[in-house]
Amino acid sequence: MDNKRGLVPRKIKGFRDIDANLNELRWNIINKASKVYQSYGFEHLDTPILEYAECLGKYMPDEDTVDKGVYSFKNPEIEPVFRADGKRELRDADNNVVMDHAFLSMRYDLTAPLSRVYAERLWTRAIKNQLVEGTAPLFRRYQFGPVFRYETKLDPGRFRQFWQLDFDTVGSSDVASDAEVCMILSDALKAIGLAQSDFKIRVNNRKILKGFLHGQGITTPLQEQAILRVIDKLDKIGLRGIEFELGKGRKDKSGAIIPGLGLDEKMVSNFLSFFEIFSESDMNRGQVIEALGEKIGNNEVSKEGLQELNRINSVLAESGLSDEAVLFDPTLVRGMAYYTGPIFEVESTQFYLDHKGRERRVGSICGGGRYDGLVKQLLGVNVPATGASIGVDRLAELLTLTNRGGTAQGPLLITVLDKEMMPEYQKIAKELREGGVNTEVYYGPNQGFKKLKKQLSYADDKNCPIIILLGSDEFEKGVVSVRDLKMGREIADEVTDKKEWRARVQHEVSRTDLVSFVNQLLNK
Amino acid sequence: MDNKRGLVPRKIKGFRDIDANLNELRWNIINKASKVYQSYGFEHLDTPILEYAECLGKYMPDEDTVDKGVYSFKNPEIEPVFRADGKRELRDADNNVVMDHAFLSMRYDLTAPLSRVYAERLWTRAIKNQLVEGTAPLFRRYQFGPVFRYETKLDPGRFRQFWQLDFDTVGSSDVASDAEVCMILSDALKAIGLAQSDFKIRVNNRKILKGFLHGQGITTPLQEQAILRVIDKLDKIGLRGIEFELGKGRKDKSGAIIPGLGLDEKMVSNFLSFFEIFSESDMNRGQVIEALGEKIGNNEVSKEGLQELNRINSVLAESGLSDEAVLFDPTLVRGMAYYTGPIFEVESTQFYLDHKGRERRVGSICGGGRYDGLVKQLLGVNVPATGASIGVDRLAELLTLTNRGGTAQGPLLITVLDKEMMPEYQKIAKELREGGVNTEVYYGPNQGFKKLKKQLSYADDKNCPIIILLGSDEFEKGVVSVRDLKMGREIADEVTDKKEWRARVQHEVSRTDLVSFVNQLLNK
Repeated sequence: MDNKRGLVPRKIKGFRDIDANLNELRWNIINKASKVYQSYGFEHLDTPILEYAECLGKYMPDEDTVDKGVYSFKNPEIEPVFRADGKRELRDADNNVVMDHAFLSMRYDLTAPLSRVYAERLWTRAIKNQLVEGTAPLFRRYQFGPVFRYETKLDPGRFRQFWQLDFDTVGSSDVASDAEVCMILSDALKAIGLAQSDFKIRVNNRKILKGFLHGQGITTPLQEQAILRVIDKLDKIGLRGIEFELGKGRKDKSGAIIPGLGLDEKMVSNFLSFFEIFSESDMNRGQVIEALGEKIGNNEVSKEGLQELNRINSVLAESGLSDEAVLFDPTLVRGMAYYTGPIFEVESTQFYLDHKGRERRVGSICGGGRYDGLVKQLLGVNVPATGASIGVDRLAELLTLTNRGGTAQGPLLITVLDKEMMPEYQKIAKELREGGVNTEVYYGPNQGFKKLKKQLSYADDKNCPIIILLGSDEFEKGVVSVRDLKMGREIADEVTDKKEWRARVQHEVSRTDLVSFVNQLLNK
Repeated sequence: MDNKRGLVPRKIKGFRDIDANLNELRWNIINKASKVYQSYGFEHLDTPILEYAECLGKYMPDEDTVDKGVYSFKNPEIEPVFRADGKRELRDADNNVVMDHAFLSMRYDLTAPLSRVYAERLWTRAIKNQLVEGTAPLFRRYQFGPVFRYETKLDPGRFRQFWQLDFDTVGSSDVASDAEVCMILSDALKAIGLAQSDFKIRVNNRKILKGFLHGQGITTPLQEQAILRVIDKLDKIGLRGIEFELGKGRKDKSGAIIPGLGLDEKMVSNFLSFFEIFSESDMNRGQVIEALGEKIGNNEVSKEGLQELNRINSVLAESGLSDEAVLFDPTLVRGMAYYTGPIFEVESTQFYLDHKGRERRVGSICGGGRYDGLVKQLLGVNVPATGASIGVDRLAELLTLTNRGGTAQGPLLITVLDKEMMPEYQKIAKELREGGVNTEVYYGPNQGFKKLKKQLSYADDKNCPIIILLGSDEFEKGVVSVRDLKMGREIADEVTDKKEWRARVQHEVSRTDLVSFVNQLLNK
């Protein structure tokens, strides 16, 4: 037996089951936020879990295996390949249609599928050259659901399948729609149950940084990305760390050497003096705009970015979002390469205690930004777009860690003291449900009066508030016994005498009064 | 350009996007039915989209390609292989741990993952031999979400990703829980909005058929499956067709020859005389039980099945489900091989007209049954289980075809007549939202008074009930123009004069009365 393959029931690493309590939390987040998204005019869209890899862009597997963070595989179906103009099938030298098994990917976010949806709708106009830049139609949608990342290194608490809850405005270059992103995130988080002081929304504009880098002679996207990646670590490694990583490199805690970008000292000091002002500052939005105005000089890109921040500020002011709620933070970078303008991050301000009693933070719970170039990869025409995403699982984790997790209440349980009375139990169950009480009849293996203890432990495991006991004696008397398990749990420590405990939690109720009695108990 | 590969934004065949209207329908179905499931004591479970292929059982890809109706691929991660006893890793002759890229599958239903969850929870007890048959704990869960089938032949209206909405009771052999399945399906469909007369629930017990087949000398599962598959076609091909397919075969409409099973005439006539009684009969449940009692003879398996039907009938009677609502139909088979006892099917009784004006039926909208052997594949111990599934997409299709589809109402739209007034528009939007009105500010490319027409057509596309118009003149007067688009659409045919039309649908309202005025219009 030892040298044979076995079958062990298990989940794939990085995947998990969601139980009733966590589902309560998850769906409270989704339903509350969706309602807020709707209240701003976003419509509900759903897209497939599986897409053509090339239509999701960016990540492209180049082998037969899943690669680069995305679960991908070859389509089992063979299909014609399209020509570059998209109008007809590609043909080989012998004029045969070229066939291929395309790569399919499980979606890694909800933004790439949105780009596909938008591009697909405008495709006919695009290939007829009828789509002029600046006239792409407005489309506002929200979407929620699982996304998938094949992370080879999984940090604790991170998963390969996790839920996102996105809203996006495609077709608007007006940064008022970026200001709106902040309003929506704020409204949604409050609707979910967070207090204003539980989170801060940080805003920056990539154009300001980009322009500043241009001013320093950094012009290639590769250099830009490398520098932004360093600046993104400011929170973790501080200004001193930034200085080393932009310059000569440094050793981290473990003694490992992190190579620097090797920028010259003058440039590094220019960067530092830029970030020094804003790092850990408590300037309000107006002061940040003023300070930036002095710092950025005459670079056109930066000036455009600053102008946009100005418009965002005036819209925010009118919509009642204070300088404490929404901060302008010129040091904010965010990872994604596709952002082109305003960027957003919501940070939880709350602490929790880890298993060693140390104070910890959950950190970022939402993120977003403007990505005017993303749709272009599919459509060939620039289409402005902005939006943000709530990390549903991250937020659920935060709520759980700060003791605001979901507790799913179990149903009332009708115990089965006599198997033959099953039709009667059903009748009572029906009445209770019609009276608004969630009611389960016990169908487990331990039916009968003698196995009541096992039925009770089932009720306890399931957090049932009440059980009902009905044998043939009670039936003939026209009564039912109702035991208040919720109260029973509450007084269990204080009342240790079994008889007294039962006298206090168990009530004999007339059959006709049952529904109203139970409802009274539940509403107590 | 012609001979290069192109990138065309598109969905994979058999996959689709779900728009706001269809989402409204989908989530109404899910939310209403979930509430019913909860009211019976089922808890909400969610499982991953991706699972180890072997843990889903049944369908196993034996090549590097996706096969046999399931999307499968090799895990990019290499992992240790388990020994047959499940306790440790398998080792090769040199005592090295055997490593493998396991196959992963996208779930093809929600029942197989439930078996995995249940088996995983009891695994430790099972490998210690502490799990005795008949003592497996009770677990009742509901789950909804997309499932995936790689169908090579896609009928119109069928999809490769579709949603199911399941509830199951694992650990109960009491067929009262099967009776409950009927109650739940009935309650759920009514909660969703179907009338009692819109559907019929058909019930049978596999044991009766199985016993009957035994009595005819059919004992191997292969023979049994083949015969059941023929009987399953009764609705389509009628008794006459069954006769041929059990016997010598037949020609179908296209002239293609369908081979028969080649059973001898005596046996075929026995089958026919069995099914004749029940096909198209209008016996009530009691009469079916009586007729079966006469037909099945002394076969123990059949007798057990009949006894179960009897218990189901007595529970159903007490729970108010009439003979019209729940039928006993001994000809019902259902496809899945894993059913072992009672089986269920809900059939829509409604017709719709197809594009040629012909009457059509949607057919089956829910199905389920008892599958006492499924968990055993993973756990090695028989665990009784029963449940059913609502086909969410099928039901949504039915509702759409019978003109009860969802219509998502758009938000109120604040048009942008003057870009500089954006902060003011935001302020109004905020007030309206706080007053309970879904409100969108127009951020599209066509801002400004001159492009109002394009903004109006956006509002029409989005089914907005109201738009708001506010320029600097109105602003100074402290008023706002409110146009009732809903009424505008209603009277468009009758009032053709533009001026008159506008006079009837457009109102100048004081800024302070705006929210209450809009609410009045919406509640009209």
